Amino acid sequence: MTTNEKALALHKQWQGKLETMAKSAVKTRADLALAYTPGVAEPCKVIAQDKEAAYTYTWKANTVAVVSDGSAVLGLGNIGPHAAMPVMEGKAVLFKEFGGVNAVPICLDTQDTEEIIKAVTYLAPGFGGINLEDISAPRCFEIEERLKELLDIPVFHDDQHGTAIVVLAGIINALKVVGKQKENCRVIVNGAGSAGVAITKLLLTYGFPTIIMCDKTGIINQKTEGLNWMQQQMAEVTNLDNESGSLADAFKGADIFVGVSAPNIVTPDMVASMSHDSILFAMANPVPEIMPDIAKAAGARIVGTGRSDFPNQINNVVAFPGIFKGALEGRAAQITEEMKLAAAHAIAGLVPDEELHEDNIMPEAFNPKVAQVVAQAVKSHIKR
Amino acid sequence: MTTNEKALALHKQWQGKLETMAKSAVKTRADLALAYTPGVAEPCKVIAQDKEAAYTYTWKANTVAVVSDGSAVLGLGNIGPHAAMPVMEGKAVLFKEFGGVNAVPICLDTQDTEEIIKAVTYLAPGFGGINLEDISAPRCFEIEERLKELLDIPVFHDDQHGTAIVVLAGIINALKVVGKQKENCRVIVNGAGSAGVAITKLLLTYGFPTIIMCDKTGIINQKTEGLNWMQQQMAEVTNLDNESGSLADAFKGADIFVGVSAPNIVTPDMVASMSHDSILFAMANPVPEIMPDIAKAAGARIVGTGRSDFPNQINNVVAFPGIFKGALEGRAAQITEEMKLAAAHAIAGLVPDEELHEDNIMPEAFNPKVAQVVAQAVKSHIKR
Repeated sequence: MTTNEKALALHKQWQGKLETMAKSAVKTRADLALAYTPGVAEPCKVIAQDKEAAYTYTWKANTVAVVSDGSAVLGLGNIGPHAAMPVMEGKAVLFKEFGGVNAVPICLDTQDTEEIIKAVTYLAPGFGGINLEDISAPRCFEIEERLKELLDIPVFHDDQHGTAIVVLAGIINALKVVGKQKENCRVIVNGAGSAGVAITKLLLTYGFPTIIMCDKTGIINQKTEGLNWMQQQMAEVTNLDNESGSLADAFKGADIFVGVSAPNIVTPDMVASMSHDSILFAMANPVPEIMPDIAKAAGARIVGTGRSDFPNQINNVVAFPGIFKGALEGRAAQITEEMKLAAAHAIAGLVPDEELHEDNIMPEAFNPKVAQVVAQAVKSHIKR
Repeated sequence: MTTNEKALALHKQWQGKLETMAKSAVKTRADLALAYTPGVAEPCKVIAQDKEAAYTYTWKANTVAVVSDGSAVLGLGNIGPHAAMPVMEGKAVLFKEFGGVNAVPICLDTQDTEEIIKAVTYLAPGFGGINLEDISAPRCFEIEERLKELLDIPVFHDDQHGTAIVVLAGIINALKVVGKQKENCRVIVNGAGSAGVAITKLLLTYGFPTIIMCDKTGIINQKTEGLNWMQQQMAEVTNLDNESGSLADAFKGADIFVGVSAPNIVTPDMVASMSHDSILFAMANPVPEIMPDIAKAAGARIVGTGRSDFPNQINNVVAFPGIFKGALEGRAAQITEEMKLAAAHAIAGLVPDEELHEDNIMPEAFNPKVAQVVAQAVKSHIKR
């Protein structure tokens, strides 16, 4: 059986990759009187007086909703809410297994921005955080921004910020290996969807002086036609020298390339045109923008991908479980830029300097310390 | 410590009475490739072709949402969605512990009928059924009816139908004990809210020729003022002789009284005015319409309450777990009147005739056979 065949067979066997389990036993009438009526009225009354008490007496303290509308699922596109469920269940499993955080997959049967915002607002009381997932750009930007304003619990679009955080972590360590300073780096981000926009924003916040964003039409500048509102905003804060041209033009002299775009669109010639000691993250999944061996042969010094079968896997799973664990434990109202930067530094720091090398810039996803260390970093940057 | 103090302390210790748990291990990269990317794309693709496949590859097959707006919680009233969470978590625990059904508590931050209908419609794809809970009348009637029309999964307002089913089960057995026929019984239902309406409807469906509904103003008839639309509908199908008067008037000559109303509103004189071998279910919670010992002393032959510390506990927990278990296993699109009647007969049948007596008309809630027997009965009445 191939991996895919095995995955399908296993999903049938599991019939759901997660389940709900009671923490409170109800084996006797006395149990029932404590966990349900009449005893349950007591925590209800306390919360009715002060809704913050929900964190003390319910699962809100340690539970997130993983919310999607199925509009941009993996590489599959707009497959709708039913078909998105296996991904959201998988994400919920990773939340629990890696971060100890309960997570409930919620796939919404609407792709209307306003209706999604309302639905998430309505279901928020029972959750301590909202992880948005696989919602297409540019709707995802508005949905996240509006929900952050409306809700008093963390809202985090993982396709954006989880990806941005692990990319930044990888870049921090890659720069250490090649001995370059961020201030002197030419950075290219290819793909101006949710991940590309968030990566660019976080790299700017981190302190890269300017970043060239590219999309299907090549380099994005303020004159580029057909940009959505978020891409227009990005055009104003990136590409400060107002370059134009193709992706190949952008590559020339670049120190860092981050691809969140499409398979096989980067050529060896492009890689060869980069600066010395170049860093290339080809994160299109499952087939990267260029295969690592080809990129290396063309002169790239450090290559990362989203895949587990090559070195330097840039994988969100080292980020989101710890980020929500920390945000929930610290009762954060939002996940701020400071918390994201702290998470990236914490992830980078999990590879000790003496173990850093070209093929080892990212921590092992299965290292049980990862979520704890990330959570601690996030918690220590919560503002009161 | 009192039970209430102990319940509060335990809720703090639990910090959530349920949790989500992974059924699929993710201990290795190979596990991750099967439960998450890239393997997870396979079930997604199959479901995208045929959304029925969600029952094969996701937890939809065995998971319900327990949805409330916190508008009519226990005896506490309109305490809102945050304060309703302990009850919904408790309900979710009972679904799993008694029926083996996964359940997710969802407390909605809106009490607008249309918004609730939309929110539930939107979150439905990931669930195999919707259990509505503690939504105030008459909104609950419209919400349930509309959702039944809109959704292709079972929608069941437990405060209505769960209660009606266990009441009917108790009446079936009580009539066996006293040796009366339903055709000859005068039945009083006091309390014209969600439970009272549903009980009356199911008892009519079962075959009681006429039922007198009462509310705070006494006997309800077609001239009664201030009725909501559902109570007006009920006035047309109950009280066929168009009686009027007080609750005490209704009691005279009654064979069966079902109270889902308020504490201590039934007097010994009312009970004494009933027919011989009278049956009295005083289900106001936690303080019944009349205490069982007083009712018995006044002449009632069979007394049931909602409480576990008296004989004949009329408790929904013998109904809803098995009803959803059966509906989900049989992939029912709705929970029909036939399925409700079948559930009531199954519950009644769990007390063998030779064990039936005045103080033993209901099965033991903790009998592990209950949910299975109810599920089987429900399944066998699913129409295709």
